[in-house]
Amino acid sequence: MAKHIGKSTVRLEHCPYIIGNAAVGGKEEGKGPIAADFDHLYTDDALGEASFEKAESRLQKDAILHALQKAEKTPEEMDFVLSGDLLAQCIGSAFGVRELGIPFLGLYGACSTMALALGLAAVLTDAGAARQCVAATSSHFAAAERQFRQPLEYGGQRPPTAQRTATAAGATVLSATPPTAYHSPYIVRVQAVTFGKIVDLGIKDANNMGAAMAPAAADTIAAALQDNGQPPSAFDAVFTGDLGAVGRDLLLQLLQQDFSVDLHTVHQDCGLLLYDRKGQDVHAGASGCGCAASVLNAYILPKMQSGEWSHILLAATGALLSTTSSLQGESIPAVAHAVRLTAEPYKYAADG
Amino acid sequence: MAKHIGKSTVRLEHCPYIIGNAAVGGKEEGKGPIAADFDHLYTDDALGEASFEKAESRLQKDAILHALQKAEKTPEEMDFVLSGDLLAQCIGSAFGVRELGIPFLGLYGACSTMALALGLAAVLTDAGAARQCVAATSSHFAAAERQFRQPLEYGGQRPPTAQRTATAAGATVLSATPPTAYHSPYIVRVQAVTFGKIVDLGIKDANNMGAAMAPAAADTIAAALQDNGQPPSAFDAVFTGDLGAVGRDLLLQLLQQDFSVDLHTVHQDCGLLLYDRKGQDVHAGASGCGCAASVLNAYILPKMQSGEWSHILLAATGALLSTTSSLQGESIPAVAHAVRLTAEPYKYAADG
Repeated sequence: MAKHIGKSTVRLEHCPYIIGNAAVGGKEEGKGPIAADFDHLYTDDALGEASFEKAESRLQKDAILHALQKAEKTPEEMDFVLSGDLLAQCIGSAFGVRELGIPFLGLYGACSTMALALGLAAVLTDAGAARQCVAATSSHFAAAERQFRQPLEYGGQRPPTAQRTATAAGATVLSATPPTAYHSPYIVRVQAVTFGKIVDLGIKDANNMGAAMAPAAADTIAAALQDNGQPPSAFDAVFTGDLGAVGRDLLLQLLQQDFSVDLHTVHQDCGLLLYDRKGQDVHAGASGCGCAASVLNAYILPKMQSGEWSHILLAATGALLSTTSSLQGESIPAVAHAVRLTAEPYKYAADG
Repeated sequence: MAKHIGKSTVRLEHCPYIIGNAAVGGKEEGKGPIAADFDHLYTDDALGEASFEKAESRLQKDAILHALQKAEKTPEEMDFVLSGDLLAQCIGSAFGVRELGIPFLGLYGACSTMALALGLAAVLTDAGAARQCVAATSSHFAAAERQFRQPLEYGGQRPPTAQRTATAAGATVLSATPPTAYHSPYIVRVQAVTFGKIVDLGIKDANNMGAAMAPAAADTIAAALQDNGQPPSAFDAVFTGDLGAVGRDLLLQLLQQDFSVDLHTVHQDCGLLLYDRKGQDVHAGASGCGCAASVLNAYILPKMQSGEWSHILLAATGALLSTTSSLQGESIPAVAHAVRLTAEPYKYAADG
């Protein structure tokens, strides 16, 4: 049985296996430093669809289908799909998974959604509620710009603190039992999940998500380290989802000041990995649900599956604002969820 | 350990206890047939807040606080709050639970959210991931009108198939262990949860949600009955969330035609209970996340706690559209989730 430990962490008993993972991205992602790690890159950000929103749904669906293919599974074999996105009423997900025929648990965690989906999927699988399920999320730069700011046609100027929403999606397939067919030397298991509470320190600048989200990241990371009883040095890396350059600095300061945690040496941010900030016009870095989702599935998990890394904490943060809340003068509540992953040598082959 | 059975049902092992439940509503809800069952009714739909969106957040927060009070629990004692709502980026929930300090799992299931939240909360509690947690959702007529249709000031005409979004919220507190202090003769436990898949038969009329959602309700109810191995006659009532008059007729037809299930005698719809359709200007009935949430917590659970009903299936449906998807010519995907509840005599008093 899973166990709730400490402040807000669920320690899993059976530690489900990640049996498939995939990421797809758009044009700008194809110019970034981890471009080669993606399963597919589209050269047309509309993906041949009639709107950017439909393109986002296609991204999510494609990421799921790629991940299932790599897991050698069909949609029919999945008990659940857990997903969400940034668009109003989560249409990126609803239309993305509509044709898959998999029971659908819709989530909203803004850019924390990959960790929320993977964490919940892991708890469900650990508990026997699912035998196999898939967690996914997506975002699209052009769809997000007109959802939260202005349509691209408006030509709005973005300040230096702004981040670029990733045109990307990622999907992770979980199984209660290890696969008998598997093609990497190591297999990743989910050990624990820390679900965070909302933290809002009063930031109102919708062009500075990093600052709004850093306090939630600090709160959840500190809780995860304490609840798991592990110092930062126990991890090969502690990833945040999309704090960007501004948020990363604030996170490191907050962790030091408020929690006496020094994360400098092991911290990495998915938002600083997806693009080359010198060569690409992305200001403070990448953001969006698809940022953590694609970096996790294209970059982090493969490094664990090859044996390079064995112990990772991924804490993805979400800014829970809308244009309505901002226009009504509200500050930006944020939340962060974290999953603790370990890699172990694969030893379950059917012929083994 | 929980068990995934049949198509899409999770049979719980420990069957968590509902130890607190509450519902709050607005002015129109205060004129309906179950008005007396609400924990609180506001006579001003703005609740003294500066906007209808802020009023909705207040509704959700108040429902949670009422439910916690009735459970004789504090927010600090809750491991998680699971909630969602209809507003873009779920701001009704984010701002509603912001000050509670409870780890927050955000959900999006449109009007299916109460069943999704309660179902997931039950699985988490059953699995040991949570010792105690709270599931909640809310909706607000005026906030939903301007979110999905036009602001009330526009004075748009609503067709006869349209439903009125409830200005209401409901919250349910779950516990892994029975309470030692409890004030009803019967206590309700969650036995099983059926998570539905997306069903979209091509309905495009955003003023006819009942028709869009009925096929999803039929699919999930048929799956729940089959997976649980129980005919409709095993239940005191099978509730849908907010199909309204149009959707209810379609549901009964679809169940008969496609699944050979006759639900006529035991079916009830929360959307037809909240208002008096003859005396109130609500067209096809009530809708919105707050409809199923308030009817469950104000009407269904109390009838189980008094011993009048012992076996209930609640299937709440959600229409997963947005104004963007409708304006882009898309049809309306729908989903339904169901929870199976039983009441048993309360026998756990501390004194014995």
